[in-house]
Amino acid sequence: MSYTMTTQRIYNFSSGPSMLPLPVLEQAAAEMTNYRGCGMSVMEMSHRSKVYLSIFEETKADLKRLMRVPDTHEIIFMQGGATLQFSAIPMNLMGRTGKADYAVTGNFSNLATKEAKKYGTVHIACSSEDRKHTYIPAQEDIDASADASYFYYCANNTIYGTEWKYVPETGGVPLVCDMSSNIMTVPVDISKYGLIYAGVQKNLAPAGVAVVIVDKALAGNEHPLTPKLMSYQLMINSDSMHNTPACYTLYMLGLVLKWLDANGGVERMTKLKVEKARILYDVLDNSSMFIGCAEKASRSDMNVTFRTSSTELDDKFVKEAKSVGFENLKGHRSVGGMRASIYNAMPIEGVQKLAVFMREFERDNCDNA
Amino acid sequence: MSYTMTTQRIYNFSSGPSMLPLPVLEQAAAEMTNYRGCGMSVMEMSHRSKVYLSIFEETKADLKRLMRVPDTHEIIFMQGGATLQFSAIPMNLMGRTGKADYAVTGNFSNLATKEAKKYGTVHIACSSEDRKHTYIPAQEDIDASADASYFYYCANNTIYGTEWKYVPETGGVPLVCDMSSNIMTVPVDISKYGLIYAGVQKNLAPAGVAVVIVDKALAGNEHPLTPKLMSYQLMINSDSMHNTPACYTLYMLGLVLKWLDANGGVERMTKLKVEKARILYDVLDNSSMFIGCAEKASRSDMNVTFRTSSTELDDKFVKEAKSVGFENLKGHRSVGGMRASIYNAMPIEGVQKLAVFMREFERDNCDNA
Repeated sequence: MSYTMTTQRIYNFSSGPSMLPLPVLEQAAAEMTNYRGCGMSVMEMSHRSKVYLSIFEETKADLKRLMRVPDTHEIIFMQGGATLQFSAIPMNLMGRTGKADYAVTGNFSNLATKEAKKYGTVHIACSSEDRKHTYIPAQEDIDASADASYFYYCANNTIYGTEWKYVPETGGVPLVCDMSSNIMTVPVDISKYGLIYAGVQKNLAPAGVAVVIVDKALAGNEHPLTPKLMSYQLMINSDSMHNTPACYTLYMLGLVLKWLDANGGVERMTKLKVEKARILYDVLDNSSMFIGCAEKASRSDMNVTFRTSSTELDDKFVKEAKSVGFENLKGHRSVGGMRASIYNAMPIEGVQKLAVFMREFERDNCDNA
Repeated sequence: MSYTMTTQRIYNFSSGPSMLPLPVLEQAAAEMTNYRGCGMSVMEMSHRSKVYLSIFEETKADLKRLMRVPDTHEIIFMQGGATLQFSAIPMNLMGRTGKADYAVTGNFSNLATKEAKKYGTVHIACSSEDRKHTYIPAQEDIDASADASYFYYCANNTIYGTEWKYVPETGGVPLVCDMSSNIMTVPVDISKYGLIYAGVQKNLAPAGVAVVIVDKALAGNEHPLTPKLMSYQLMINSDSMHNTPACYTLYMLGLVLKWLDANGGVERMTKLKVEKARILYDVLDNSSMFIGCAEKASRSDMNVTFRTSSTELDDKFVKEAKSVGFENLKGHRSVGGMRASIYNAMPIEGVQKLAVFMREFERDNCDNA
């Protein structure tokens, strides 16, 4: 093994899967062999048992309350992560007009766009490719189609470290949004959206589930070749239980939601994420060594991307950071540099300590800068 | 809560999700907040990190070794359970001739058949519907088509308690088999199969993954509208890592495989499952109260289905069994009666104790029989 043995938890800046709150992990461990005196693990429960259904229903109710999901919309839990939604969205929603608008602002919206082309006509309503996805296009740069079935965008781009600071205006075309990397970090007016979804492995739970919140009026018109389990209407009708769901992952989601609720809910997470991001961007803005990768107006509060003037110094930074307990600061392989992913479960202390480390690293290595 | 508080683990006869080995759960709990000194939970690890990849690769290698998977075949891990395979199989494999044969021997093969009809011509090669799925058709009752792309069957029918005791002969048409409820309970000559698959939540792990073992020669001809993540060829090419897999579920699968290996492998599990089933069928065969639901020649070693002469007595049995720590003995809602699911993780002591309880129940209730 190449990792350092430690009895301490490290600060994990991974872009996903990511840190989970320690109290949540401790509770999961304590309940592992015998869930609250029922004599079995949550992993072993029939998904149709009373005890499991109470976990499931409470998790869904907490999500509905914490995200203020209106009754027009249904929460469904699917497997296959965000990637299966790249297919499910056009298969379910593109039939209305046969066309859809896509905003391409990074890797994942680009993958979603490519997949959608299999199922209908895709119009690129805007793209940030001209400046290597370092920014989010402005409203006036969006060429939205009146006859699109939906307008698709990705709210936060993990690889490039950019985040939409506004909700696009589409003239009544339903908005579809991938919120995998910023869900429950900022309040969302869900009534503005036809569908939002998120792979859970960044802000909500271990990998293996996508949360989909869909306007019920849009479901029920899927392509006839849509795999049964990918039909939003079937998932709504069966309350996500047509077959065995990823029971334990949903239980972990439930524990994270309880933790989030006890820690002030989405509003408190918003205050914290703004503060955490500010701490790191302050370091970048006052550094003569570190350079922020994203344009200032489009900077993400979730993924802070930066680099130095040389890949050697980048590597040295990542290596030294790791040696003192800051893990996974290496940037995505497609762009290089560094990335600090600071989702809800990253404590502010972790960010403060990283900021101190960055300043010390700059001081100690100013000759190399 | 309607369940009884207990500090003890109960015997859980659920058909799935099902019991997991206690040492596996204990290890998972012990490693929850800090996996082997790396400072984080397996749930928090990047799926591309060295430490996670070593878990993934070891799990896959153990499965290959324990199941003797030949090099002609590839192991892939998918999400969506068996149900998503009902769609993935025809989408990937039916294109060769546009036709497929299906053996309908229960609920799940029936669902698979219905789904396959969306993608091509389905021929029912045999069906046990005439006697309410209480038996498995014999080889001579199979009407196999020479031009089928594949021949599909479900090796063990959990609801009805029947199990195929032979491998169907199809004259060279590739076999496709759902082994969700008997995988790794009996040695399988995988070279005979085009594809076998299993939802993991009965014999292998908590719910959330399907293990698919596919002949590499059959992949790569999927329907053009196949969702990208459901392409067997893409999953082979990306080693099941095109996107974030269900990392923690695969870790749990790895722990179960280590437990299975340490306990004598598939061969030992086969001996045990034969013995466990014999204990319960002996009770049925020597009872004047309990009636086995499946025909003797087709009885499943995994799911022992039985009933009494009245639903009131059935209910009394299930209730009293529950009160002394035998959980989930109620039969599937579509057939009633009782069902004892005795997968690999059910200790033989649990089965022995249930047999004693059944005999005592019969003695105490002989007036009602």
